[in-house]
Parts: sequence; C-alpha cells; structure tokens
Amino acid sequence: MINRQLLNPESIVVIGGSNDVHKPGGAIVRNLIQGGFKGALHIVNPKEDEIQGIKVFHNAEELPATDLAIMVVAAKFCPDYVDYLAEHKQVRAFIIISAGFGEETKEGAELEQHILDTCEKYGCALIGPNCIGLLNNNHHSVFTKPIPKLHPQGVDFLSGSGATAVFILESAVIKGLQFNSVWSTGNGKQNGIEDVLQYMDEHFDPEHDSKVKLLYIENINDPDKMLLHASSLIRKGCRIAAIKAGSSESGSRAASSHTGAIASSDTAVEALFRKAGIVRCFSREELTTVGCIFTLPKITGKNFAIVTHAGGPGVMLTDALSKGGLNVPKLDGRLADELKAQLFPGSSVANPIDILATGTPEHLGIAIDYCEKKFDNIDAMMVIFGTPGLVQLYEAYDVLHKKILECKKPIFPILPCLNTAGPEVAEFLSKGHVNFSDEVTLGTALSQIMRTPQPVPQEINLMGVDIPKIRKIIDGIDENGYVAPDIVRQLLTCAKIPVVPEMVAGTKEELTAFAEKIGYPVVAKVVGPVHKSDVGGVALNVRSSEQLGMEFDRMMKIQDASAVMIQKMISGRELFVGAKYEPRFGHVVLCGLGGIFVEALKDVASGLAPLSADEVRTMIRSLRGYKILQGIRGQKGINEEKFIEIIQRLSVLLRYAIEIKEMDINPLLADGDDIVAVDARIRIEK
Amino acid sequence: MINRQLLNPESIVVIGGSNDVHKPGGAIVRNLIQGGFKGALHIVNPKEDEIQGIKVFHNAEELPATDLAIMVVAAKFCPDYVDYLAEHKQVRAFIIISAGFGEETKEGAELEQHILDTCEKYGCALIGPNCIGLLNNNHHSVFTKPIPKLHPQGVDFLSGSGATAVFILESAVIKGLQFNSVWSTGNGKQNGIEDVLQYMDEHFDPEHDSKVKLLYIENINDPDKMLLHASSLIRKGCRIAAIKAGSSESGSRAASSHTGAIASSDTAVEALFRKAGIVRCFSREELTTVGCIFTLPKITGKNFAIVTHAGGPGVMLTDALSKGGLNVPKLDGRLADELKAQLFPGSSVANPIDILATGTPEHLGIAIDYCEKKFDNIDAMMVIFGTPGLVQLYEAYDVLHKKILECKKPIFPILPCLNTAGPEVAEFLSKGHVNFSDEVTLGTALSQIMRTPQPVPQEINLMGVDIPKIRKIIDGIDENGYVAPDIVRQLLTCAKIPVVPEMVAGTKEELTAFAEKIGYPVVAKVVGPVHKSDVGGVALNVRSSEQLGMEFDRMMKIQDASAVMIQKMISGRELFVGAKYEPRFGHVVLCGLGGIFVEALKDVASGLAPLSADEVRTMIRSLRGYKILQGIRGQKGINEEKFIEIIQRLSVLLRYAIEIKEMDINPLLADGDDIVAVDARIRIEK
Repeated sequence: MINRQLLNPESIVVIGGSNDVHKPGGAIVRNLIQGGFKGALHIVNPKEDEIQGIKVFHNAEELPATDLAIMVVAAKFCPDYVDYLAEHKQVRAFIIISAGFGEETKEGAELEQHILDTCEKYGCALIGPNCIGLLNNNHHSVFTKPIPKLHPQGVDFLSGSGATAVFILESAVIKGLQFNSVWSTGNGKQNGIEDVLQYMDEHFDPEHDSKVKLLYIENINDPDKMLLHASSLIRKGCRIAAIKAGSSESGSRAASSHTGAIASSDTAVEALFRKAGIVRCFSREELTTVGCIFTLPKITGKNFAIVTHAGGPGVMLTDALSKGGLNVPKLDGRLADELKAQLFPGSSVANPIDILATGTPEHLGIAIDYCEKKFDNIDAMMVIFGTPGLVQLYEAYDVLHKKILECKKPIFPILPCLNTAGPEVAEFLSKGHVNFSDEVTLGTALSQIMRTPQPVPQEINLMGVDIPKIRKIIDGIDENGYVAPDIVRQLLTCAKIPVVPEMVAGTKEELTAFAEKIGYPVVAKVVGPVHKSDVGGVALNVRSSEQLGMEFDRMMKIQDASAVMIQKMISGRELFVGAKYEPRFGHVVLCGLGGIFVEALKDVASGLAPLSADEVRTMIRSLRGYKILQGIRGQKGINEEKFIEIIQRLSVLLRYAIEIKEMDINPLLADGDDIVAVDARIRIEK
Repeated sequence: MINRQLLNPESIVVIGGSNDVHKPGGAIVRNLIQGGFKGALHIVNPKEDEIQGIKVFHNAEELPATDLAIMVVAAKFCPDYVDYLAEHKQVRAFIIISAGFGEETKEGAELEQHILDTCEKYGCALIGPNCIGLLNNNHHSVFTKPIPKLHPQGVDFLSGSGATAVFILESAVIKGLQFNSVWSTGNGKQNGIEDVLQYMDEHFDPEHDSKVKLLYIENINDPDKMLLHASSLIRKGCRIAAIKAGSSESGSRAASSHTGAIASSDTAVEALFRKAGIVRCFSREELTTVGCIFTLPKITGKNFAIVTHAGGPGVMLTDALSKGGLNVPKLDGRLADELKAQLFPGSSVANPIDILATGTPEHLGIAIDYCEKKFDNIDAMMVIFGTPGLVQLYEAYDVLHKKILECKKPIFPILPCLNTAGPEVAEFLSKGHVNFSDEVTLGTALSQIMRTPQPVPQEINLMGVDIPKIRKIIDGIDENGYVAPDIVRQLLTCAKIPVVPEMVAGTKEELTAFAEKIGYPVVAKVVGPVHKSDVGGVALNVRSSEQLGMEFDRMMKIQDASAVMIQKMISGRELFVGAKYEPRFGHVVLCGLGGIFVEALKDVASGLAPLSADEVRTMIRSLRGYKILQGIRGQKGINEEKFIEIIQRLSVLLRYAIEIKEMDINPLLADGDDIVAVDARIRIEK
C-alpha cells in the first residue's frame, strides 16, 4: 500500500531525531530541513528539548495528529511506537530506517510481522524496515548523502539495497542525472520493488509523471507482478532499466547472504526482462548512463552523427556504435561539401564530423544545425567537446545548451575534461543537462537499449490447446518423476504438437496394417525388456510387411517381450525444444538446433512461457546456427513458422501444467515441410 | 632517434614562446616553469622582451648553445629554424608542436621532409610535428592540461593523437594514475609509437625504468617492429595495454580521415596484440583502468576476496569476475568462523566478506589481514569502501593505505563516493594510490588482462619446410591469380602437409597399379573437359580394379578427354585452414571446423604467421566447436597435434611466400589419426 500520507505528507514526525548529524537520526532531520519540507516537522526524543532548531516532543503522547512517521530508534521499540501512532495519532505512513529485523534474527522477523499487521489493520503505508528511506520532490526522508538534484521529470529510482542506492547516486550526480524520487525498499515487508512499480502503473498520469524508472534488484519476489507492471508502464511510454545482481553462481551466493535474498536463476531473469522490455544493466556506471540516455528525447532510428573536435574519441565511439549494430553513416555530396566550406581547412565531414581542435563554438553550432536540418539520414547527434586547457568552454557549452533545447533530434553531450574544464561542465549540468564523460561507455549503453525488445503483448493465444484434458492427465499422475512414454505422447497431442506415428500391438496383423497406413520404412522395438538394444530388440529401417513380420516373430521370442512397437522412421534436421520450471518465474523454454548444437556449442535461446509468435521468432533468429535453419549448402531450410508454432504450443501446455518441472523434445525432426517430435521426456513433481 | 638531449636536456629553447597562456606558445612556457625544469630555459620571440619572467632573445642568433628546441611557430618558419639551430647552436632534439605539415597539404609534407633530412644529417631527435609535445620527470614540454602526477615508476604513455592523449589523461588523473612520461608522436615523421617502444626496449634498465606502457594507436606503420619490441619489453617484465582505434569499418573510415592514418584490418591487429602479449582496450576508461591495475603488484592467481561494507557492489563485482573467468572462492571452515567472530553480528564472511555498513576501519583491517595471512586460497583482495555520508573516511582510508603498503597480495581499492567523500578520496590518492570508482569496470578490465596470453617466443621453427623449393616454385609462376592444382600440391608437399594421394594417367595399367597401392575406394575424374560432372566425368566410390578399368574406358570416350585422375576416397571430420595476406602485417592464418562451422557459424580462430605450436593450440581451443574436435557422441576426436602441426607448417610456408595473398585448404579431412588436405586453392599476386 502506498498513499498520499507517504508521498506528500502534511506533517512528518522523526521518532529518534537527534542533533548528531553523524547518526541517521540527526542526518535525516538535517536532510528534511535542507530539503525544504513545507509541512509540519516534529521530532520525538526523550532526552533533548530542541534539535536542529526544532522544538522536541519528549514522548509520542504529546504529538499532534501526523501523516508520516520516520522511525530511527532501535528495532525493539518500533512495534509499540507503530501501534500507538497508528491508533492515536492518525499516522498512516511509516518509513522504518532501523535495522535489526528479519534480515538479522527470527525475533526481528516477528517484530517486523507485528508492524506489518498493524499497518494492514489501519491502512498504513510501510517502507522498510532496514532502509535509507524515501526521497521525493516533497520531502527528503533519507539519512544519506548525496542528495541528487530533483526534478518532476527526473528519474524514479527504486533500490532493494540502501548502501547500493547511495553508490548508484554517487555515479549519477557526477553525470548530472536528476531524480523525481528515490525509494529504498529495505526488507520490503509491505512494499517491495514490484509493489512500488504496481502503484506507479495503476496511478500513472501521463502528463505529470516521470517516464524513467531505474531499478536495483537483489531478489525478484513476484516475477509476474514485475512483468505485468513493468511492461504496462513501458507500453504507457515509460522506459525502465534494471540491475539484477547475482547473475553468476558466485554472485548468487553473495546475494543470498545479503538481506536474506534468494537468488533466482539468471536465465529466467534474462527472459523476464526481455519479455517486459526492461533494459538490463550490470553495473552502477551502466545503469546511470542508461538513465541519462532515457532523460533525452527518444531516438527514432539507428543513424548517428558524431560531431567532435578530436579525432580519436570519434573513432572509438564509431567503433563502439558499430559493434552494437548502430550506424555512423557516411556523409557526402553537396550538403557535406557545403558544411565543410564553413569549417576550418582540414576539417572532415565524412562522419565523424571533425571540426578540429581549433574549431570554434560557431563551427559547433553550424555542424549541429546541418545534422538537425539538412542531413536526412541522421537520427541523433553525439557531440564530443573538451579542451587541452587553452581556452574556457563556457561559450561552446552555451551553444550546446541552446542546440539541445532547440533541436528535435536528440543530442548526446560528451564532455571529457572533468578536470581541466570542471567549472564549465558544472555550469552546463546546472542547466539541467546530463554528461557522458566516456564516449564508449555511452555507445555501449546505447547499444544495450537498442537491443532490448518492446514488451510482449499480454494476451495469451491458447491456440486450441486442450487444457481441460491436459489437467485431467496431469491430475491423474500420482508419482513424481519421469512419466511414461504414452502419457508424454498424450500430453503433446493435447497441445497439437505433431508426434511421429507409432503403435504398440501384440499381433502381426495390427502392426502391418498400421505400417502400411503410415508407410515404410519403420522402426520396430520390442516392448517389455528394459535394455532393448542389448537383447536385439530394436530393428531400424524395416522396409516391407514381410520384413516386419519376421522381426515381429523374432522379437516376441525375446524374454519378457509383451508386444512390439513400431514407429515411422524419419530423418531430417534435428531440432531441440526444452523447458525448465523456475520457482516463481514459471517455465523457461529453450530452443535450438539439436545434437551437437545443444551439446557442444550450447547454442540455445530462451524465453519465458507463455510465448508469443514474435517472441519465439526472435528467439530462433538469435541462434548462432539460424542460417542453418534457413537452409545452407543447397539444403532446403526448415519450416520456421511450424517450428515457432510448436514452441508456442508447448509454452501454452506448460503454462497450464506447472507440475512439469523439466522436459525436452529431442529430437524434433524437420523433414521437408513437416516438423515432428520423435522423442520426448517429461518430469513431473507435485 | 631518441637521445639524451630530448629526454634530459640541460637547456631548452621555446621558439615562439609567448605571454598569452591561452595560446600554445604561452601555455608551454607556463608548463615548463611550473614543471620545475632545472636547466636553462630560453625563449625566442622577436616582439617581446620578457615572457613569464624570462628574458627573451629576439632572434635565434643571440641564443647560446642549446640541447632541445620546441617549435611553436607557423609551419613555414620551422625548416629554417631547424637548419640554423642544428648547424649553429648544437641543438640535437626538436619537438615541433606546430601543425600545418603533411597532415594538411603536400607543401606541408615537403616542409616536414626537409626537417627530417636536417635532423638525420645532424643526428637530432625529432618529435612531431603536429603534436602536444613530450612530458617527463625532467621537463614538461607540452602545452596542454591536465598535467598528471609524475613518478619514475608511473606509466609511460605513448599517443598517436594529441587531443586524445589529453582526454585519456583526464580519465587517468581522476583515478590517481601517475605517469613517468607522456609522448605525443603527432605525424611521427621520425619517431612513431613503434620507434619509441624500440628505444625503450633497447635501452631498458630493469632497475630504474617504468614497467607500464599505455598506447593509443591510430595506425600501426610497422607491425613487425611493434611486435618485436612490445613482446621483448613484456618478456623483460613490462606490461603493455593499447587502444587501436578504428576496429570497425565505419571506425576505420574515421581513422583514415584523421592525421592521414591508414586503417589496418582489425583481425590482423587483434592477432598482433595477442602474439605480442599486449592487452587490448577499446575505450579511454578501459585503458586507464588497466593502467591502474598495472601499477599494482602482479596477481599470481585467479582467486579474489572481496571485502565490502555494502552488499550490492560486492555481488555485482562477483558477477563481473565470474563472467570473466575469475573466481571468488567460498570461504568457510574454522578460519572463516574466527574472522566472523571479530566482526559485527550479521556480517558475512562467505566471500564477499561483508563487514556491514556499520563496519569500522578496524574491521576492515582485520578482514584484510585474514585474506593476506590466513586464507591460502586467496590471491588478491578488492576492497569496496564508501560512505552514506554519516562519517568521514580518513581513518578507514588510512587503514587501507597502510595495508596496501604492508600486504604482499595486491589490494584493489574501490572507493565509490567521489562526491560525498571527495576530500577523503583525494587524500588517499595523494599518497600515491589509485582508485577504481566502479567495481564492474575494474572486474571487466581485470578479466581482459587475465585473458591476454604471454608473448609468443621469437624463434621460428622451420620444421623442415623446404623453403628453397618453395621459392623456386613461386618465382617460376608468372601469372597472378589462382595457381594450377598441381602447383598447389607441390607447395603443400614442400611444407610436408599431407595431401590426399592422387595420380593422373593415360593408361589403365598405371591407374590400377596406383589404386592398388593407395587402396580402394577411389574417386575417378576425367582430365580435359571443364565441366566434368555434366559430361559424366566423375565416378565416386570406385571399389575394384575391374570397376576402375570400366570407368577408365568410359571416360576416355568423353569428348576432349586426355587422361583420367584418381584420388583416394576418404571421409572424416571436415576441417578448415585459410590465410589472407594483410599488407605490412603478413599472413593472418584462420582455422576452424569446416563446412557449416565456417560458412554459417563463422567459428574460426585467427593468428599471425609464423605460428608457434602453443599459439595454434590456443587458437584451436578457442573455437566454440572445440568439443567436437575432442570427440563427442561416441565419435573419436581428431588428432589435435597433427592439426596443430599442419597449421604451423602452413604458416612457415606463408612466411616465405608473401606472394600468396589468399589461400585455403578446404576441406582438410580428419580420418582416424590422419589429417589430409583434400582440396586447396592458392591465389598469388606479385
């Protein structure tokens, strides 16, 4: 629950406020005062009469009715305060800074639960415990520094770790990134990151709300909620980037030991982010760089002009953009010549546009104007402008400032001289701009954004999969483990996934009739013995009724033989589809070319069930071996649409059978235009 | 040529020195004075009497004998000054800052050539023209800012671009990186980056010389020289990292338009760096981060302890290290428990060692001591220590400072709070330390270093390749283009590369005798007709003398048939070896699995000829499909040593036949323990 009292309180009380700004209770009062909180600010402290110029209440009884209480006292005192304030002082929002709760001990977890129960009873919002607080345009209820610049269209930043939030802010303020709000969810007893996203989604105001969200996540408790609201916000025009720490096995161990987070498998996280349209980042530097990019106008294409007065950085940026699949198109012809004529001799306009170290602010303006108004094949500009220390850059950065405001095409400022031109860069940032001091870091972050797909539509196409029958089969299974081949067959058939024709029979007549129907050659296998090959119970390439009859007679004489199974013998390109159930996330579906491509090359793509056709298409096309699926060396390609359909159908089946913990269809054979499952295994756990 | 007068002049004259520090002539005088140059500093300027407190000579005639002249006058005046100073004033070193030479016009190139000729005549060192100058512990002969901190064991930095050097220095000074020298080679008329490396190599003093070299390269003019001296320096204990800008096609275009650099193919650069043992970087940020790592003691293993007081950055760093193949081993057992008992409750020692946000400087010291002295499975430490703004960090950073001096294991400081703890970080850096403000940037750079192989030994093993015969064959070819199959065969045979047995004969008897010697089955092809298949001139799988005889009779009746060729028919795993001649670099040799692995998956590894066995082994093992070569799914692996030998032999052949511009052996078939070339093409251009 998030409410008005939390977001925009008329009054705040700090329980445990102090004069010592080296302690959280003192630092948070200082931040509230310096943040210019406009409502009534109260402090409760039994030992002081005045704190930082504010009259102090010695106990909670003396307090007037208050909207928001910030708790900075020891954990054991918190529950009583919460009870009293909620019941008698109309407090409807709590920010609990204090640690020593569920993240430390069992007793702490009980205190935390007590607080939550009280909050639920009175309809209170709860942030924390064990957090740095909440910071927005109305009140600076955090005890930490730095306080970033605030702006209603700045970034909403949600962090599952307080200390990490601080370090991310450090990386952000250097770049000039402005914030609308900072949420440190701590133990997230009532509000985790997913819940804050839900609130932002359900109350989204396209005119006034910030459109940029940055997340630092240690644990995704409710992947469905995250998917639903993140993708919904993105569809409403927001842009979201996130770090999910703990992507490696060692990293997961570290995450598990921190605020009790349970690591999720990284493939599932990766798939969830792709499905939601969240840009995945792996470092503070990358997250804040992406955040800065998000505050600029959205790029409409992949073609960049680089305007620079130094060759090297332009080349390195060109390399980084090209590596990320973006273009730095060559500029030539009449317009390019016209531009060149207005710059110093020796300038280059081929793109990068190099106006030379001696290039003036006026040259910079002219080059930007050409990119904005004349070069139709340019979607955005990157401007690299530093100094070897001869002149000050105020004039050049003022041109840049004005052009950023004027131009429709986004302009990315790359101002590298933080040392020599420190004051000029600071002035530029003070006008509300961001700065990317390293051009390659920018290029890499931009590529990561451009590579992130749009969110997947929410509607699930059930594709005529027979869900009631699937449920009936699954419900009828009473043992955990791998299920019998005929059950596998039934399940695939319910999902209308083509399976290779086969029949089990005890008579020669039935088998030959079936074989004639499906056509020779067939494979015959004895039913009964476990190690069929060892006892001569498998015959490949049976080509006639006569041969089938002989094999039948021979096999029925094998010890334990009860029947014979025949299967159409087919050949073709091996494909692979598999799935694994990831607790809370659902099924991660894998696909690829079969055989060595899966076993030796690990060339598989993954997605989170249920999958849309577009999602599966993207998966398949991301395979390194995709060219082989398209057909190569004179071989015909596979029927891609049919492969997509099978994976989609499987993902629907899985969505309604979460008891399936692991499965694979291997091989799935693509023969001409057909694709047929030849062998499959399903493991069930209830 | 580099001499004492350039490196450690007793006297310097600035031709064109000025009072205006906003111009190069003024700024360079300021830098020389502020840099505390201990010798005699003269200035020539016809219009001034005193400049920045120094008496001025109105013309060069008045000058006493001087070691080094720095030219900051227009290009057209430079040659006369150089002539006069070299002839009459014993000047033996020139740094020409001025631009307007070969990088701009043909006339400029002539001025440049004149200056070089004079320098060669009098044995003068020449830096530039068109550069920012030279900076070392003796004299600050650059006109730019920032001036980094200098230290005899700091970095030697060589840059092909002056403006880029400035921006790289900006990125370095923030990290606290110290320098021994900065060389801006500009047009590199006498001394390019390769030449400076050569000097450093040939005059290397292991006791006093700096062991870290950072390079920014726009063009490798002499790859052999770079390879020779870079690898030699590394073998002597140096560590070298470099950016070679222009790695993408668009990037190369940009590089070509800058100081007239000619782009080299990137694969060749990549191969050259690997062979030399140079760590390749792609951004200023990465280069300076690697530079900072290089100034720390060398890491002896891959196991890192992370000591942190914030969970999140520890997790992100663990992820980054794991992704780069480095370890963050779990710490447990008695010693871990012992450490845990000395930290605050709730701390984690599993690694990352999280001493909590409230952890004290003392805790930090204890954790470091355990990693240094007690945990044997730890090779190096990374310490993450920032602040949420409650306390100052002087004490903690002093502990860190002392431990860095004390400990044998390298300690990487990660101090993220550049904003809130700016003064504390600055004090820490002032003690000569570096700081990695973003942990993931550090982790990535470190992985890049650990992935770079040692330099390859210089000795070429000729492996009994018949070089005189190869030369005779090549010299005997008078037409450019693809050479005839029998020549290809001869060349491969000279290199002792096994080729599939084949024979061309006009009689049945010769053929059957040969077929019996090599063993059936064989392939028979008609000789004469161009489109053999179309006229029925190819017979596969000929299994007996009788069948061969029949095929011979049939084929000789085909129009234009002059003879029949037979070849042993073999099957096996397809392999691929190819090579391309890259001007100046020599041959880039490619290898991989054949067929779809080359065509569809582009799974090839590359190296620069000649190749050592170790190099080829590394190449082969870097293939994604290496597991397949080892044997998979019950198939026996190939004979890896034989594959290595063939590639080595080919690289020797190529080294002595640079007329071969392109060639491939495709397929090379691995059949059991043998590997045999079945088909090959060689294109020659003289």
